[in-house]
Amino acid sequence: MDLAQQWSEFLIEATEEEREVASLYLESLKRIQSGKNGTHIGALMGIKSEFQEPDTLTMTIPNTAILQNSLDILHGGLTATLLDSAMGTLAFKLIPEDKAAVTTEMKINYVAKGVGNEFTCVANVIHKGSKLLVMEGKVFRDDQTLIAHATGSFFIIPKRV
Amino acid sequence: MDLAQQWSEFLIEATEEEREVASLYLESLKRIQSGKNGTHIGALMGIKSEFQEPDTLTMTIPNTAILQNSLDILHGGLTATLLDSAMGTLAFKLIPEDKAAVTTEMKINYVAKGVGNEFTCVANVIHKGSKLLVMEGKVFRDDQTLIAHATGSFFIIPKRV
Amino acid sequence: MDLAQQWSEFLIEATEEEREVASLYLESLKRIQSGKNGTHIGALMGIKSEFQEPDTLTMTIPNTAILQNSLDILHGGLTATLLDSAMGTLAFKLIPEDKAAVTTEMKINYVAKGVGNEFTCVANVIHKGSKLLVMEGKVFRDDQTLIAHATGSFFIIPKRV
Amino acid sequence: MDLAQQWSEFLIEATEEEREVASLYLESLKRIQSGKNGTHIGALMGIKSEFQEPDTLTMTIPNTAILQNSLDILHGGLTATLLDSAMGTLAFKLIPEDKAAVTTEMKINYVAKGVGNEFTCVANVIHKGSKLLVMEGKVFRDDQTLIAHATGSFFIIPKRV
Repeated sequence: MDLAQQWSEFLIEATEEEREVASLYLESLKRIQSGKNGTHIGALMGIKSEFQEPDTLTMTIPNTAILQNSLDILHGGLTATLLDSAMGTLAFKLIPEDKAAVTTEMKINYVAKGVGNEFTCVANVIHKGSKLLVMEGKVFRDDQTLIAHATGSFFIIPKRV
Repeated sequence: MDLAQQWSEFLIEATEEEREVASLYLESLKRIQSGKNGTHIGALMGIKSEFQEPDTLTMTIPNTAILQNSLDILHGGLTATLLDSAMGTLAFKLIPEDKAAVTTEMKINYVAKGVGNEFTCVANVIHKGSKLLVMEGKVFRDDQTLIAHATGSFFIIPKRV
Repeated sequence: MDLAQQWSEFLIEATEEEREVASLYLESLKRIQSGKNGTHIGALMGIKSEFQEPDTLTMTIPNTAILQNSLDILHGGLTATLLDSAMGTLAFKLIPEDKAAVTTEMKINYVAKGVGNEFTCVANVIHKGSKLLVMEGKVFRDDQTLIAHATGSFFIIPKRV
Repeated sequence: MDLAQQWSEFLIEATEEEREVASLYLESLKRIQSGKNGTHIGALMGIKSEFQEPDTLTMTIPNTAILQNSLDILHGGLTATLLDSAMGTLAFKLIPEDKAAVTTEMKINYVAKGVGNEFTCVANVIHKGSKLLVMEGKVFRDDQTLIAHATGSFFIIPKRV
């Protein structure tokens, strides 16, 4: 049975949540196609980036079933994914074009539950050295409550050609 | 146009990688249905857990396109997700049934690239207190190279009924 | 031979740096006597605290030979001591009088060399919960260069009577 | 009044604890003179190092009034100093003689009170790369209780000549 048929069969008996998630998965594949996101996880999370002045990056994601743990709260690993993505994207913006930035460490403090309609991550620069960048990231709910705070180190390396 | 038709249309012109990812998405939904995973992200990552003796938990995931960053390397956020899941699952095993464990902080050192066929995370206990558990997690490639090391704190709270 | 005689004999042949350190040690003991510091390490470091508005604490220390590692740079452990002291002192200010705050974890990023005449640590609140406080600390040189950034968790417990 | 006289006057009216601390300060200066320690803080803490096989370092310190916070417990900053010293000393042993290792970050989990007669820190290697070393450190009481766990990153740089 081909893949389209398998999806079709699955969807016939799918619950409402399963249909919602199936729809998010399709949307995710289309986000990659259209260049809105460069990675599957970024597309699954529906990440939208916006550079702010000075040296600040904001990333926003809608809250969906895909992101939640078994208690219907934003999964701590996906909070980490959002923070790493935001700090890393900002790091890449701050270095020369022939360089890449790789995360060498990240520490996250989880301080409130991730619930609501969307989450916003704000990344800033703590230190900009010639070999190492240290970044800060904060994740907020729509009610402006801070849910997580992170610091991370990004090592500057030559870009592979 | 209904969702099954949308999937069908998408798949007609899909690339091989898109078809592979679409197949992983369908498999993920089925993993939830069959109870193999309790969360979408766990199902998307294909997480399999196994308790070891004493006080050790192992989680294994296959390497797929879904997990990779733009350099085809395991995304640091998903490494974090695997570590948080493994340490958190072990934490839940170590506390009374009427309690829950929530991550209050996690720090990860990324030490090698995540490439290969699968990744194995091993979680251990550093400290077991009455209010706080401190756990250690390590992620290995199939060639046994350590790719990430984490420590995390888990706060023990009453379970919501 | 009694202690005063031992000090006297030591000082006769002491180098200039040894005399300077001996003088700092005597001053440290007097700082405890006069109530300027509550701990020997705080007195040895010559810590001075000042509360700022709102929810901010500043601690300043002079740079002395006592604080330096073998490269004549502020020892990373003493940077940590300053950060833990500042964040902890601020934590105590934010909780009820019948409670105490204990550090459960602290992470420090060292970003520049600690040199100069004095160091200033600024502590702020990241999150104030009923059971846990998360604090941020930054250490600056006199030329305003950031040398270290820290985040730490402080658990609120009943004070022993 | 010269320094020896000042010490003499102070000691006449000193309490037993002040005399004990004054004695530790004199001993610390002598530890530097005799080459037992290379830094004042190492001498004040009475640090003794011993290399173990393979890639392990042990540091032991006696518990003295100098090390304690206002609750008579090992100060968290001095626990950090011991951990940084042990991990850093091991890092130096693992790199070529023309290189130096500098701490770029350290995270500590404090899990039990530091009380007893002495403290032992055991440092191990988590990852040995060409540019970065990641180390682990643990501090134990004499009753073998773990009181703190740390991980730290050490950047390998050319040694200044």
